[in-house]
Amino acid sequence: MPEYTPPLRDISFVLDHVADIDGITALPGFEHVDRDTIDGALAEAGRFMSEVFAPTNRIGDQVGARLVDGQVVTPDEFKKAWTRYVEAGWNAVSGPPDFGGHGFPHVVGFAISEMMTAANLAFSLCPMLTGSAITVLRDHGDDHLRSTYLEKLVTAEWTGTMVLTEPEAGSDVGALRTKAEPNDDGTWSITGTKIFITWGDHDLADNIVHLVLARIPDAPPGTKGISLFVVPKFLVDADGGIGERNAVQCVSIEHKLGIHASPTCVLSFEGATGWMLGEPNRGMRYMFTMMNQARVEVGLEGLAVSERAYQKALRYAKERRQGRAVGAPRNEQSPIIEHPDVRRMLMTMRAYNEAMRALLYDTAGAVDRATHHPDERERTAAHERAALLTPVAKAWSTDLAVEMTSIGVQVHGGMGYVEETGAAQYYRDSRITPIYEGTNGIQAIDLVMRKLPMAGGDVVRRYLSEIEDLDGPLGAAGERFAAIRSRLAAGLKVLSGATSWILAQDDPRDVLAGASPYLRMFGTVAGGAYLARLALAAAPASGDSWAEAKIATAEFYANQLLPQVNGLAAAVEAGADELYAIDPAQLEPTS
Amino acid sequence: MPEYTPPLRDISFVLDHVADIDGITALPGFEHVDRDTIDGALAEAGRFMSEVFAPTNRIGDQVGARLVDGQVVTPDEFKKAWTRYVEAGWNAVSGPPDFGGHGFPHVVGFAISEMMTAANLAFSLCPMLTGSAITVLRDHGDDHLRSTYLEKLVTAEWTGTMVLTEPEAGSDVGALRTKAEPNDDGTWSITGTKIFITWGDHDLADNIVHLVLARIPDAPPGTKGISLFVVPKFLVDADGGIGERNAVQCVSIEHKLGIHASPTCVLSFEGATGWMLGEPNRGMRYMFTMMNQARVEVGLEGLAVSERAYQKALRYAKERRQGRAVGAPRNEQSPIIEHPDVRRMLMTMRAYNEAMRALLYDTAGAVDRATHHPDERERTAAHERAALLTPVAKAWSTDLAVEMTSIGVQVHGGMGYVEETGAAQYYRDSRITPIYEGTNGIQAIDLVMRKLPMAGGDVVRRYLSEIEDLDGPLGAAGERFAAIRSRLAAGLKVLSGATSWILAQDDPRDVLAGASPYLRMFGTVAGGAYLARLALAAAPASGDSWAEAKIATAEFYANQLLPQVNGLAAAVEAGADELYAIDPAQLEPTS
Repeated sequence: MPEYTPPLRDISFVLDHVADIDGITALPGFEHVDRDTIDGALAEAGRFMSEVFAPTNRIGDQVGARLVDGQVVTPDEFKKAWTRYVEAGWNAVSGPPDFGGHGFPHVVGFAISEMMTAANLAFSLCPMLTGSAITVLRDHGDDHLRSTYLEKLVTAEWTGTMVLTEPEAGSDVGALRTKAEPNDDGTWSITGTKIFITWGDHDLADNIVHLVLARIPDAPPGTKGISLFVVPKFLVDADGGIGERNAVQCVSIEHKLGIHASPTCVLSFEGATGWMLGEPNRGMRYMFTMMNQARVEVGLEGLAVSERAYQKALRYAKERRQGRAVGAPRNEQSPIIEHPDVRRMLMTMRAYNEAMRALLYDTAGAVDRATHHPDERERTAAHERAALLTPVAKAWSTDLAVEMTSIGVQVHGGMGYVEETGAAQYYRDSRITPIYEGTNGIQAIDLVMRKLPMAGGDVVRRYLSEIEDLDGPLGAAGERFAAIRSRLAAGLKVLSGATSWILAQDDPRDVLAGASPYLRMFGTVAGGAYLARLALAAAPASGDSWAEAKIATAEFYANQLLPQVNGLAAAVEAGADELYAIDPAQLEPTS
Repeated sequence: MPEYTPPLRDISFVLDHVADIDGITALPGFEHVDRDTIDGALAEAGRFMSEVFAPTNRIGDQVGARLVDGQVVTPDEFKKAWTRYVEAGWNAVSGPPDFGGHGFPHVVGFAISEMMTAANLAFSLCPMLTGSAITVLRDHGDDHLRSTYLEKLVTAEWTGTMVLTEPEAGSDVGALRTKAEPNDDGTWSITGTKIFITWGDHDLADNIVHLVLARIPDAPPGTKGISLFVVPKFLVDADGGIGERNAVQCVSIEHKLGIHASPTCVLSFEGATGWMLGEPNRGMRYMFTMMNQARVEVGLEGLAVSERAYQKALRYAKERRQGRAVGAPRNEQSPIIEHPDVRRMLMTMRAYNEAMRALLYDTAGAVDRATHHPDERERTAAHERAALLTPVAKAWSTDLAVEMTSIGVQVHGGMGYVEETGAAQYYRDSRITPIYEGTNGIQAIDLVMRKLPMAGGDVVRRYLSEIEDLDGPLGAAGERFAAIRSRLAAGLKVLSGATSWILAQDDPRDVLAGASPYLRMFGTVAGGAYLARLALAAAPASGDSWAEAKIATAEFYANQLLPQVNGLAAAVEAGADELYAIDPAQLEPTS
């Protein structure tokens, strides 16, 4: 039995009924893509990830990336898998056709990413960051940069990095100090130290293309004085081949809680040669496009590791016998899946995973419409939808990933605490996801301060009214959907009230104080709405056990998870004063 | 600045206003103990744990326990700290006076345990299990066993273990297979393999006293056919000295997610010499006494690691500057503690820690009254109170420990994911606590199936009516307590309703299905009630900043955490059918 089974039918169902894949493939630019090709590609990619990537997950955790003589070395199994990945062309599926990509919709590449990430989260970060580099180069690079780098990145023969963070500039990127000084030949000389650079060095590819944020002389302070540079590990000669080594070095890698196979590098730039990407002082703007995409992909990481944790816990619960369930034969230990509390844990994982997947694919599908729809108003609406959902997709999914992988450990009992079992790895790996690409606290700030006020609140109101519009179909669907309908209506009422409260506040501190519980509430109600939509879509096939399971999952979520919003409203609307009632000095313990 | 500051004032406040330490020291048997002596002992113990144990925490994680030539080796720092611990006499504080103990109340030893555990969770497990062995030997051992072992265990010159689990007998201890066969001299020959034996071997003490569950010939099946044996690592000669090596070997130790310094041993007994403890086939009964005590102590581990995580996060949040808080000076990064979301995280940790401490010390204090009160009815009432609260103290505190240490990581941002920072260790260490000494799912079963029905429901009703009785004093305390009062009343109403629902069910499956959310609800309301009591106790000192902080913490909990019970009621009362709606085969992903 494989360690990871790609949940193709679930993914396909969400592509149909949430992302509207048929609508997306009908957009200009996707004429060459049809549903059969997509299904075939996903099935083949799923098999590849399950057979080639998934078996590397444990060795990556145990051996990890190592720094040897200034060079990051990955496990041998990674090099073999990477070669096959490049050869199979999986990196190019959604890539730009002008540069060797197959030009599939973004959401299709997203589905492949889900499976790759579930197979090996640490490994998947390398293509993920490469994808971010492709986006920035494609959108903002000049012809020289695009022709030099894009094709190699699209095939993944070379990989990309995002080089933002410095010791004093983490969440506050604007505080960075790395310098870029002009050379006579139009290139720039980059000097500074960067930290937390994911896959900042490795031995999988012939070259690494760093996208580096730095300040040029006389740049304004803060985020408005930051420029973006392309700094390759090896300079590229005139015919596109590997030239001399550039002055960028990995000086150390972090010893981390998880994702051991993903080298997190301290990079030292000592007059490294760089090329400015786009215009001076606009680097943060370029990065923001990429960051939004990356944020949704980190949300996807949350789902992926949570899905894998679910599969492992489910298998264990079916095999492990312990105690006797109510009504089970005497003198026989029951599989622990027969115990109600274990079943609750598995249903909780399953229901949240399905809800996360729908939210994430909705967001990814909106990106395709925002870039490809012929109608500008539709493009704008899709862009706004993606903008609204991005912080929720990132933070809700990754908070849940930590909770679900923790449940995964718990299902295994004592064996879950033993590293050889593997459940603990998901728990450790998942813990980075609420932190990087903007901490979840920052996502919550983004949601309440920037996204809710978009178009005077109309964007969020439109989204909430879509949820409200489910009430009719749920009512028409009969008694089987009565609980889902009433629970969703109740949850929506709480969320709408909280949304109005936030939009009505004058003092930003009061809004910020409730931001995190509000984001949780938003995700919880949105998740319930997505599951209701999927249950409605499954209803015509009622009687089919797969379709029945979809409806049962939605019902469980509606009755047992969605009501948690009732516990969050008070915290959303409590205001800031209570948080600041105790002086920091008084927060210290007294001995 | 020390890595860990013993929160002596908080502990003292809870001893006074929750555990009623003055009432306990007035009980027969504690005539030699007064409050000044207790305060002095706690202050001295706190200093010792902070200065001697706390600095060993990181090295214990990094180096861990190692198995070398069949012998577990601990870090050198541990041996030095252990020697000082034994010499200082800290293990003997609550020990039985007839065997070298100082005969302090259990709750005083409990307070010392909190500080020791916060200083080094992995290390603390060795004295913790030794304490369990002392309890069982004291209560059920004959004169020979008591005189041979107790004094050495009380001083901690020797240590004790609990040897229960086998590969097929984890949560279901009754399934165990280890055999005990009678020898001609009245001793027993023990043969079998045991797993997950905490501190099952080590090099800190001259001898290790294993308490081993095994079956004698012709024993009844299940838990009624299990006997308990004392099996020392080294036989003890006639004058109490170390004799020949017994036939028990540590054959491997687990590679675990956390508590690396605590050796988790596979022990092989190959005809090892043992002495029966108590009567045949009553081993599980003797163990249950010990287990209840151990469960509360595992709950205490939850608090301890959560308190340490809080202290670390608080310090980081005050030092780390990033971004600019609303209203802060321009061109200056603010300490992140000034950001509302960070303040929310810290307040959440603080409030839950205070609530956990009160619940735990209430339970520990009840143990003292149950053993020492001269009035039998009072002893029974105290015993029932401890019995009711034990599963909540264990499971609620340890679930929260995982959540709070996760928040601790989050406060640190990217640095939290780097092992050198130390926040990740607490997250890893804490994860065992919801698993061992009975998984939290089993605690929830215990609560709803055995504890709620005690005395026809009167025990739980009495506890709930105590909470209700706070309403008068909270009303009398004026406007400052209005929110606490109304939130507590609302929470209690939900908990009372859920309790009545459980007590009214006929089908145990429906009760079991809601057990875990019910336990969470119980803990959440109980926590709010304890904080309200402490706030009332602090009110006379109103104006004093420490007392004001107590009240503000209770208010934050009441307004922002306690309302979460509103999100749990639906899951408690949903019944079992929804959990079983999907066939296990259909829970698998479809490719």
